[in-house]
Amino acid sequence: MASIGFIGLGRMGHAMSRNLVEAGHEVWVYDINPEAVARIAGLGGHAASSAADAASNRQFVVTMLPNGPDVEDILFGSPGVANAMAKATLFIDMSTIAPEATDRIATRLSRIGIAMLDAPVGGTSEVAERGQLLILAGGASRDVEAAAVIFDAVGRQTIHCGDNGTGTRTKIVNNFMSTALNTLTAETLAFAEAAGLDVARTVEVLAGTTAGKGFVTGAYQRKVLGGDISAEFGLGLASKDLNLALSYAAGLNVPLSVGAAAAQIYSMSKAEGFGGNDWSAVLETLRRKSALEPVHYPD
Amino acid sequence: MASIGFIGLGRMGHAMSRNLVEAGHEVWVYDINPEAVARIAGLGGHAASSAADAASNRQFVVTMLPNGPDVEDILFGSPGVANAMAKATLFIDMSTIAPEATDRIATRLSRIGIAMLDAPVGGTSEVAERGQLLILAGGASRDVEAAAVIFDAVGRQTIHCGDNGTGTRTKIVNNFMSTALNTLTAETLAFAEAAGLDVARTVEVLAGTTAGKGFVTGAYQRKVLGGDISAEFGLGLASKDLNLALSYAAGLNVPLSVGAAAAQIYSMSKAEGFGGNDWSAVLETLRRKSALEPVHYPD
Amino acid sequence: MASIGFIGLGRMGHAMSRNLVEAGHEVWVYDINPEAVARIAGLGGHAASSAADAASNRQFVVTMLPNGPDVEDILFGSPGVANAMAKATLFIDMSTIAPEATDRIATRLSRIGIAMLDAPVGGTSEVAERGQLLILAGGASRDVEAAAVIFDAVGRQTIHCGDNGTGTRTKIVNNFMSTALNTLTAETLAFAEAAGLDVARTVEVLAGTTAGKGFVTGAYQRKVLGGDISAEFGLGLASKDLNLALSYAAGLNVPLSVGAAAAQIYSMSKAEGFGGNDWSAVLETLRRKSALEPVHYPD
Amino acid sequence: MASIGFIGLGRMGHAMSRNLVEAGHEVWVYDINPEAVARIAGLGGHAASSAADAASNRQFVVTMLPNGPDVEDILFGSPGVANAMAKATLFIDMSTIAPEATDRIATRLSRIGIAMLDAPVGGTSEVAERGQLLILAGGASRDVEAAAVIFDAVGRQTIHCGDNGTGTRTKIVNNFMSTALNTLTAETLAFAEAAGLDVARTVEVLAGTTAGKGFVTGAYQRKVLGGDISAEFGLGLASKDLNLALSYAAGLNVPLSVGAAAAQIYSMSKAEGFGGNDWSAVLETLRRKSALEPVHYPD
Repeated sequence: MASIGFIGLGRMGHAMSRNLVEAGHEVWVYDINPEAVARIAGLGGHAASSAADAASNRQFVVTMLPNGPDVEDILFGSPGVANAMAKATLFIDMSTIAPEATDRIATRLSRIGIAMLDAPVGGTSEVAERGQLLILAGGASRDVEAAAVIFDAVGRQTIHCGDNGTGTRTKIVNNFMSTALNTLTAETLAFAEAAGLDVARTVEVLAGTTAGKGFVTGAYQRKVLGGDISAEFGLGLASKDLNLALSYAAGLNVPLSVGAAAAQIYSMSKAEGFGGNDWSAVLETLRRKSALEPVHYPD
Repeated sequence: MASIGFIGLGRMGHAMSRNLVEAGHEVWVYDINPEAVARIAGLGGHAASSAADAASNRQFVVTMLPNGPDVEDILFGSPGVANAMAKATLFIDMSTIAPEATDRIATRLSRIGIAMLDAPVGGTSEVAERGQLLILAGGASRDVEAAAVIFDAVGRQTIHCGDNGTGTRTKIVNNFMSTALNTLTAETLAFAEAAGLDVARTVEVLAGTTAGKGFVTGAYQRKVLGGDISAEFGLGLASKDLNLALSYAAGLNVPLSVGAAAAQIYSMSKAEGFGGNDWSAVLETLRRKSALEPVHYPD
Repeated sequence: MASIGFIGLGRMGHAMSRNLVEAGHEVWVYDINPEAVARIAGLGGHAASSAADAASNRQFVVTMLPNGPDVEDILFGSPGVANAMAKATLFIDMSTIAPEATDRIATRLSRIGIAMLDAPVGGTSEVAERGQLLILAGGASRDVEAAAVIFDAVGRQTIHCGDNGTGTRTKIVNNFMSTALNTLTAETLAFAEAAGLDVARTVEVLAGTTAGKGFVTGAYQRKVLGGDISAEFGLGLASKDLNLALSYAAGLNVPLSVGAAAAQIYSMSKAEGFGGNDWSAVLETLRRKSALEPVHYPD
Repeated sequence: MASIGFIGLGRMGHAMSRNLVEAGHEVWVYDINPEAVARIAGLGGHAASSAADAASNRQFVVTMLPNGPDVEDILFGSPGVANAMAKATLFIDMSTIAPEATDRIATRLSRIGIAMLDAPVGGTSEVAERGQLLILAGGASRDVEAAAVIFDAVGRQTIHCGDNGTGTRTKIVNNFMSTALNTLTAETLAFAEAAGLDVARTVEVLAGTTAGKGFVTGAYQRKVLGGDISAEFGLGLASKDLNLALSYAAGLNVPLSVGAAAAQIYSMSKAEGFGGNDWSAVLETLRRKSALEPVHYPD
């Protein structure tokens, strides 16, 4: 049984702290909303009178707060959680915040000898209710191992992403892709409907191709990530198909903002000479635009 | 055994006509490149002396050409395939061309009493070699059924998308999504690398979330396509995560053109009042921007 | 007095042919709409019975048609203007069409010994009524000089852009900028209004700064186009200001699609090392993205 | 002669405080860099030992700092400028910061009875040296009038934008437009060069059209801002020209990210039914996308 301070009882924090209580841990909870505290206390948790009270003399202190400034205030404001924690406490921030904030927090806690994990989660509040979250942890291996008692109670899988800051960064990169993909999916289905297609049948088609199945476990693994950009599907052909779609959509007055942005990247990639390579070679173009060291692919 | 005229022996056409020959059909092939014709003749096909020669007195005539103008020239130029075909011939265009061209072709052939299918394919040339293409067919049901002898020899699955023109449109919509998703995937991985993350581990994470698994068979089916936009994951939260990513990337000098375009769609969706709804409600925003009739969702 | 065939009497063509008639020229006009022909005939022009009739035995033949295919049909269809023209005729296409079409037309006419100018115009129909168009001419100097009798009757200024094709290209580049700038202007004013600003006062401010006055006759001439990218206003500062605006607008739910696209170009430019240079150095970044030979600026 | 505290002696602050000294004012300057302080002291200013020291017992306190957090720290950190100022002091922040920060500062100062202006400036450091800045002031009229002794010494023109916060917002909106226009200008000139045009001649053309002269003092005043969206230049034609440019550029492998984003706005505008209206009607489309109350234009 672990003793845990848990700060932040919004929709996600409520579900997570409840799962910790139900797993048999001693959980001291705090939120600015007293009703949220009372709800967990009613389920067997302990009501703390302040964030500092929740954090004093615990093995673990977990924060689940809306934004980076909230976490920094709770820790370093007055009276702050940072000073309230014992040296042996492991601090775990499970909020989704800016990487710069995570870095500042890790640095300041390290100065006063307190270890930390940044461990934001993947999944909706409904997934949190079922204790099935994905946990993306950044920090020392031994701390990730120690935190397993907590992560196992709230999640289905923990991925150790690397040092402090990598949990936050991985979450941000992951959600960048999912939130942008959401918009691309919507553009595609609005386009299909405006083109007079049956949307359900179009979804059936998409589900069976790269459009719906994605690249990360397929084409990218086989090609560019494996150091091979010989054409499986030519980048120039992909560019041609995309421009064909944009021209057709323009005639239908269907805005395809995401797709139009993508088309310009293909132009850059062709201008760099990748037109005859695999379409996954756009990664190399974007790597270079981000000042990453060019990869040299075999001919 | 069917008698087939096959016009256009590029990488894809070569593989497809070879599979038709190997399936035992009588195949008359034509291409402007005599060597391409000779290759198929050497495998048991018949060398035609012109496109019109390939098309005369066949049950089926198949075209697999680079662009719409090529198909229109072959059909209606002089001497044209349209006039060479018998009334009972079924014309099947398997090229990927502009929908406007497909519509013109269908109209002109219909005037002279010849039935047609637009049936572009999904899959790379390597997939074509193995006879495993996806066929997206537009036209009358009886014609799609009749063409099964051909489609079965070159593909693994045929989807009947609707009337003439829907095969072409479905292909264009599908490739719109896949080619744009390719760029989004590349942006995500360049971002991960520039953020100092281990790319292989990031791919592992993406593969387990909506980012890598996509929306079409998951969230969209459960939510917006099923008429329900109550929040599973809130659109406003998705927008916040995306803006957090863009701010962080701006500091790293990582361009995220596709993601930045997506972020503006979220702003429009929030301005329309969907901030508290499910993130899949961006579809409704984009439908309206495309002048599609608004859907009214239950509260 | 010149003898002129004029084909295409839409809003622009009407105004232009009327000005030619009023300048005292002998003008044979043709349009598919007989009423349009009758209107000019009523003002002193001559009604031609066909495009070929309008074009026979004239010193000049002018076309003012909606699209490239229209011009190619009129010229090379049957009976075509190309064959109707005498060898001494100067053909002048004043339509705005795709450069590829202009190039094809110039090549085909040159084969049959007929000289041509591509000379699209700048200005609205109201400007055309007043004979104040801007004429962007591509072709041989002696042909541009010969055409002055026409250009002077319909325009206020003729710019000789270079060889055949450069008139069309200059028009397209010019209208690219003006049509995109229109959208940027609209984004800016919608942003101002959503930010609670008085729009009229904001316009007054914009009118006095680079925002409203533009770069082409100011900063670009002094800096990047003059080979100097030392910072007058730093590119990194410009990028910071733009990102500040995007963050603020995101909070207001104001979509800034054009601005968000621009911000990614700044990121690319900073990734290339231009952050400390003048903001006009984005030109060098975009030149390189377009595979143009890099310019080397003095330190 | 006014007594002025001036905090922040970067490139801009140096030039501005020097102009204040040269205009005969008593200026107490502070910066974290002692050399910057010494330079102004050497010109007749007074070296303050801290920000609070600079701010005590002055008629005016001016800040010119890099970011919003810098201004908030100087004011409300310890020892803070806010407490050091006398009640009669007018605080003037001339930095360019986020509007949210300006609003927080105005609110907190107002609580302790201190009046403030947000008065960011337009112009480069070279313009600042010559005392020719544009000053965008937000606050009470009497405070803007009182500050004239300062503004006249550093600037050529002061525009009173409205209440507190409007100076900052106007600056951000203005720089949004200028920084994005910079990128659009660069796209246009890279496009011209890639199209084989003479760049200098293209600049000459642009300078004479709306592309180079802009909309804010021309078309917008005559049309949409005056309540008239009848077509002077049709929105549908503008959209056609822009799509023509994008298609041509795609064939040249020239990326036009800004222009491609703009094209989607035209599609939205046409889907809303504005295709036959003036091209300035895109403003109405973007206003609606930003949840601003629709304007009803006369037929």
